[in-house]
Amino acid sequence: MTVTLAHGGGGRALRALLESHVGPAVGMDALRHDAAVLDGRIAMTTDAFVVHPLTFPGGDIGRLAVCGTVNDLAMAGAVPYALSLALILEEGLPLEVLDRILASAAEAAREAGVRIVTGDTKVVERGRGDGVYVTTTGIGHVPEGVDVGPHRIRPGDAVLVSGDVGRHGAAVLSVREGLGFDDAVGSDVAPVAAAVAALLAEVDVHCLRDPTRGGVAAVLDELATGHDIAIDEAAVPVHDGVRAATELFGLDPLHLACEGRFVAFVMKEEVNRAVDVLRTFGEAAEIGRVQSGPGRVWIRDSFGGERLLVRPWGDPLPRIC
Amino acid sequence: MTVTLAHGGGGRALRALLESHVGPAVGMDALRHDAAVLDGRIAMTTDAFVVHPLTFPGGDIGRLAVCGTVNDLAMAGAVPYALSLALILEEGLPLEVLDRILASAAEAAREAGVRIVTGDTKVVERGRGDGVYVTTTGIGHVPEGVDVGPHRIRPGDAVLVSGDVGRHGAAVLSVREGLGFDDAVGSDVAPVAAAVAALLAEVDVHCLRDPTRGGVAAVLDELATGHDIAIDEAAVPVHDGVRAATELFGLDPLHLACEGRFVAFVMKEEVNRAVDVLRTFGEAAEIGRVQSGPGRVWIRDSFGGERLLVRPWGDPLPRIC
Repeated sequence: MTVTLAHGGGGRALRALLESHVGPAVGMDALRHDAAVLDGRIAMTTDAFVVHPLTFPGGDIGRLAVCGTVNDLAMAGAVPYALSLALILEEGLPLEVLDRILASAAEAAREAGVRIVTGDTKVVERGRGDGVYVTTTGIGHVPEGVDVGPHRIRPGDAVLVSGDVGRHGAAVLSVREGLGFDDAVGSDVAPVAAAVAALLAEVDVHCLRDPTRGGVAAVLDELATGHDIAIDEAAVPVHDGVRAATELFGLDPLHLACEGRFVAFVMKEEVNRAVDVLRTFGEAAEIGRVQSGPGRVWIRDSFGGERLLVRPWGDPLPRIC
Repeated sequence: MTVTLAHGGGGRALRALLESHVGPAVGMDALRHDAAVLDGRIAMTTDAFVVHPLTFPGGDIGRLAVCGTVNDLAMAGAVPYALSLALILEEGLPLEVLDRILASAAEAAREAGVRIVTGDTKVVERGRGDGVYVTTTGIGHVPEGVDVGPHRIRPGDAVLVSGDVGRHGAAVLSVREGLGFDDAVGSDVAPVAAAVAALLAEVDVHCLRDPTRGGVAAVLDELATGHDIAIDEAAVPVHDGVRAATELFGLDPLHLACEGRFVAFVMKEEVNRAVDVLRTFGEAAEIGRVQSGPGRVWIRDSFGGERLLVRPWGDPLPRIC
């Protein structure tokens, strides 16, 4: 058995790899997709970024790395405190490309109000890398009284998205396929901390997740454990350009990565307030509800039909982040 | 201008890259080789590991990654608290190799008394990686009253090494060149926290550094700022197998990486006590003294001659860690 590209996607292959190999070796806790919260309310998260190409409409690997990591902290309700930045450079990389990526990373860190405090730089021979791989690790602090996580999800909870979905996936797809979507769809890559802070201040949030690899579908699949989730497909906000791209390639926007959005679970009594808060940041919407059931995700289409969400084995778009 | 292999070595090219590119972009503080110490006495450090081959006499990339990171924390006087582990896997990697590396990482974490709390796994296409790259990040806590760093080095300080030098470099060299050193020299890769804790408990340590990329020479070159350092070459402990390897390849043991040793600066009045403490862990020795001067490193050979240490542009052994 060998590692395949599917193992790096947001599908079942990755979960199988984590549950059968990484988890047993280093401890199942280390499987967490987002941040681990340690004693003393310190949150810690790490992400390796191998996105191809290095630059895409709306961002580059530097901006992506910083946003991805501070957003993982935000998903634990943590306020980011410090970041580390480790680079694996391929021999032959133009220094101007490196400079641009580092400038993007620094700018994203300023936007997110976090410092890059330590780093490391390694170089591999031509043909042993792909320009630049970036690994960012973040630590943050979870304020007293904040408790968000899958353990708080209950039947009846409303499921929200903080903005339109699938932009990052569509942006990378468009540039990779050389299509003319560039002007229409830029990646949504951005820190979400401000929207999360505003939401936490107003609403008792049960759970937060950023729909990166595998998109909103991967988040729903992961969190439909011990209960079902029913999604109203027509309620999911999708930009026209993203819809055009997904129709051309036979993809589903729910499976495309976002890098500046989050999914929030709140009590249904608070859903209107939550949507109002999030609407000041983007095209937020309630997209479904948690309901009793064994752990399925139902997608209700605009014709009234219902289907079960099937999570792919790999990912339609490898190396999206 | 492009990135070259020399930029990944322990020589002047890396320093130039950091000072001209990484530093100005993300802030000079992020240049620190070892851990950054933040408010609240939290230490943070990150390292990307690209060692080739993945397995070498005495260890593998998993053990190396964990030890390298906990040792960087120890060099700041910090007690390790938690680690993250990010993997970049190349398509086609046998899962049994991954399992072995993860088991090594987990074992090294147990030895060091630290938990791996979070992780990430990405996959790149065949020919875009080299089996496995590992990035580990560590956080720790610097106990009240501990203050070690270059700012405390003073003329008159004694320079110690905690054990014989160059083993990691020689071990990687031997397997890479297919030479028969395997039995004679294994890498020294190991956590040094216990030796550091014992030393800190007994002696007022001024500065600690682990001589990884670029070896003891790189540490001395970096720390000879505002004063000179004079080294007695004959006092540097070197295993016979390491000496044989260096003579064959025309290398200097002072330039070969260690992964389970450290250099300590202590007041000369405390040198005997420090050596006594460290001797319970390995072949520790006083190897030189700090003296007034503009920032040079003098090497006194066994014939009484003196030469200036010249730090190479790149590294005799790329991808050593």
